[in-house]
Amino acid sequence: MKTPDFSKGLLTSVVVDDQTGDVLMVAWMNRESYQKTLATGQTWFWSRSRQELWHKGETSGNTQEVKRMWLDCDQDTLLLRVKSAGPACHTGKRSCFFEELELRKGK
Amino acid sequence: MKTPDFSKGLLTSVVVDDQTGDVLMVAWMNRESYQKTLATGQTWFWSRSRQELWHKGETSGNTQEVKRMWLDCDQDTLLLRVKSAGPACHTGKRSCFFEELELRKGK
Repeated sequence: MKTPDFSKGLLTSVVVDDQTGDVLMVAWMNRESYQKTLATGQTWFWSRSRQELWHKGETSGNTQEVKRMWLDCDQDTLLLRVKSAGPACHTGKRSCFFEELELRKGK
Repeated sequence: MKTPDFSKGLLTSVVVDDQTGDVLMVAWMNRESYQKTLATGQTWFWSRSRQELWHKGETSGNTQEVKRMWLDCDQDTLLLRVKSAGPACHTGKRSCFFEELELRKGK
């Protein structure tokens, strides 16, 4: 089985709602957070802004139980399907992608 | 309407199949590729490995027509729903996330 390649830096991690398939958030993992995710079955990330390990939901209670996980073709991006205990976004929205952008008309 | 924040670097871009909702690939955009995506209605990225603008499908023919697009809560990640003319992955697979990882049992 392939394993993540940490040589290029952090793993980009796309978190999807296991029930709806909706993309909830994108976050980053270093080796330690990846190992903690595997060991605990919940998502752990590396906060780039705070420069610290981040157990998703530790403060809010909105933990994410990992149901399935895939590595991409060049081993630096993860896709995780999770059961989320609550909203994924710090704004209280279910998904971080609530701001729809306008596309040009008539294309 | 909010606009992307390029001050922190490239925009992480999650590309989803508009018909199935499946995550196809993750790539990056700089300001120019974002503007070309808006102007053409097809995905353009910034190739970090080749350090060049990359019109998805220019070589393979597997272009991606953008149907809907969202910006995340901190304006540095895009979610795009696309109609793909063919496989998204350079391996010929439909999605780059074909390598499923094993989770611990009994958690």
